[in-house]
Amino acid sequence: MTEMTTATGAGWLSRDDMDAARERLPILYVDVLPVRVDVHGTVTAVGLLLRAGEDGQIKRALVSGRVLYHERIRAALLRHIEKDLGPLALPRIPPAPQPFTIAEYFPTPGVTPFHDSRQHAVSLAYVVPVEGDSAPQQDALELAWLSPLEARDPAVLAELMNGQSTLVLQALSHLGV
Amino acid sequence: MTEMTTATGAGWLSRDDMDAARERLPILYVDVLPVRVDVHGTVTAVGLLLRAGEDGQIKRALVSGRVLYHERIRAALLRHIEKDLGPLALPRIPPAPQPFTIAEYFPTPGVTPFHDSRQHAVSLAYVVPVEGDSAPQQDALELAWLSPLEARDPAVLAELMNGQSTLVLQALSHLGV
Amino acid sequence: MTEMTTATGAGWLSRDDMDAARERLPILYVDVLPVRVDVHGTVTAVGLLLRAGEDGQIKRALVSGRVLYHERIRAALLRHIEKDLGPLALPRIPPAPQPFTIAEYFPTPGVTPFHDSRQHAVSLAYVVPVEGDSAPQQDALELAWLSPLEARDPAVLAELMNGQSTLVLQALSHLGV
Amino acid sequence: MTEMTTATGAGWLSRDDMDAARERLPILYVDVLPVRVDVHGTVTAVGLLLRAGEDGQIKRALVSGRVLYHERIRAALLRHIEKDLGPLALPRIPPAPQPFTIAEYFPTPGVTPFHDSRQHAVSLAYVVPVEGDSAPQQDALELAWLSPLEARDPAVLAELMNGQSTLVLQALSHLGV
Repeated sequence: MTEMTTATGAGWLSRDDMDAARERLPILYVDVLPVRVDVHGTVTAVGLLLRAGEDGQIKRALVSGRVLYHERIRAALLRHIEKDLGPLALPRIPPAPQPFTIAEYFPTPGVTPFHDSRQHAVSLAYVVPVEGDSAPQQDALELAWLSPLEARDPAVLAELMNGQSTLVLQALSHLGV
Repeated sequence: MTEMTTATGAGWLSRDDMDAARERLPILYVDVLPVRVDVHGTVTAVGLLLRAGEDGQIKRALVSGRVLYHERIRAALLRHIEKDLGPLALPRIPPAPQPFTIAEYFPTPGVTPFHDSRQHAVSLAYVVPVEGDSAPQQDALELAWLSPLEARDPAVLAELMNGQSTLVLQALSHLGV
Repeated sequence: MTEMTTATGAGWLSRDDMDAARERLPILYVDVLPVRVDVHGTVTAVGLLLRAGEDGQIKRALVSGRVLYHERIRAALLRHIEKDLGPLALPRIPPAPQPFTIAEYFPTPGVTPFHDSRQHAVSLAYVVPVEGDSAPQQDALELAWLSPLEARDPAVLAELMNGQSTLVLQALSHLGV
Repeated sequence: MTEMTTATGAGWLSRDDMDAARERLPILYVDVLPVRVDVHGTVTAVGLLLRAGEDGQIKRALVSGRVLYHERIRAALLRHIEKDLGPLALPRIPPAPQPFTIAEYFPTPGVTPFHDSRQHAVSLAYVVPVEGDSAPQQDALELAWLSPLEARDPAVLAELMNGQSTLVLQALSHLGV
């Protein structure tokens, strides 16, 4: 649920206004698990973002971000995937809007498996096949491709923040792998 | 997408603040098609809200409303169903959070089939079986139970506002009726 | 629900045995609506098979066929798409096994919207994006790409057999178009 | 995937014919995870069948069984739930036919997580809320209600046969618990 860019301008929010809204309204997000698939659609790898935390520890995350005012869900999915994987990722945005689940991130820990200290975020979760090359665009950010088995490794899951390990497991269950 | 009550207090929004947020952020909603089912789960009737508009014309609507700050989706579903159908409706909120579709209401007509002049609303859409009696709680508001065939009648669909006729047809398709 | 090839050999069925099974067991099928999508995943066209019937009338159909013994659903999807669209279609089989609906074809008309005089078939229905070129492989069989609007035309829907017009409408509803 | 009763008569199969079909065709099944829910639809308990195996070991299973010729999926769900939980279980069969996943049981171990030495079975998997009392009808068969946390216990999962531990975990993931 990291958001590194802040859009400004007509219809968008200043940092102060966004902070105020975050104390008052659920904020709409999308979460994406990028996957590599073979010709049968079988998932061969799942992509997790990777960065070094300030304390030197490795943190992992899903592709994730806010839906903007007057932005289609599809456009938000494409924008956040390109932001994190670069313009050559060639994501295959699903043709149907039905997410595989909804993740509710609460500022209070324990209400759901998901937690975000900054806000109440409600996230539509999708699996998105990616066919091209990923070239992460942000400093200190990489994308690691793991086999479904590797992604279930407790050591890997422990590096996911905000309860996103639950969302990775939900995605893998949905995929049947 | 009618919202007749305005919550105030800690963490909630004044009317002015809500109006400001509506110009800047997508607002999270739930839409519900209440249904009657038989012992096999087959839908025997669908419920549409009915009210007389100011111009004397009949308007129909789904059960619909905003998700509040720090409110679970499940709690919002129950709250809006009880608001519109009364406390004896006995809704069976679905155990899984996956909605059957997402409806994106844009303030600009034509972007999607859904339109809301006040705001950009993104709505999680569910079908909810109702087992009890409905006793609409709001002035000039009734719930009409229609057979699936009656609900597809163009004259009925034409009385739905904001593109909700599309959502009713999507729900009926999802139900296989 | 046309099946033009009959596999024989170990573990498969002779025509007589298959005819016997069809009178005794529900037969497992897959139904596929091939679609063209843009970079946002929005459906720009849907593919319907087209053939001239013996009476000279045009008949339309979904890509459809039986799941064989010891065959994965994914493999059946790929096989039937390649059978009807050719080897250069480049279908993107969905990574998750959840179908958007189940179509129950009964030999008795009127039990469900779906009918198959030969058998009781239960079909898992999927939408499959296709990125390559289609070159139908069977005699007198073509694939026509229609806009979502054209596909809803009553004249087009009337050319679909066995109640598949209902399945096309269900797919379009699921896609939100 | 236990089937204790064998229907005979018009349109159904003798034991010999069924054995022959099982070597030639995928057989259509339904799998059901019965759940208890509260007023918000939150799952408070999941039901697993329990029996003593011939070796004295405890075996657990989902409610599961074959779909018969000319039987609706809904009717098969109700029949198998009543067979295993008794006539007072009051199941709430889901109004939509979309299963949460498809489980492919192969006679060859390792093709998928699911295995059935007798046959290739393809199962439509559903979560079904149950509101009444369960009174298992078969000898040596009980229904145990477990909290979602208890159901994830490796010792419990190890008592599930044929890979159904995977299906229980998939159901719990789908439910968001």
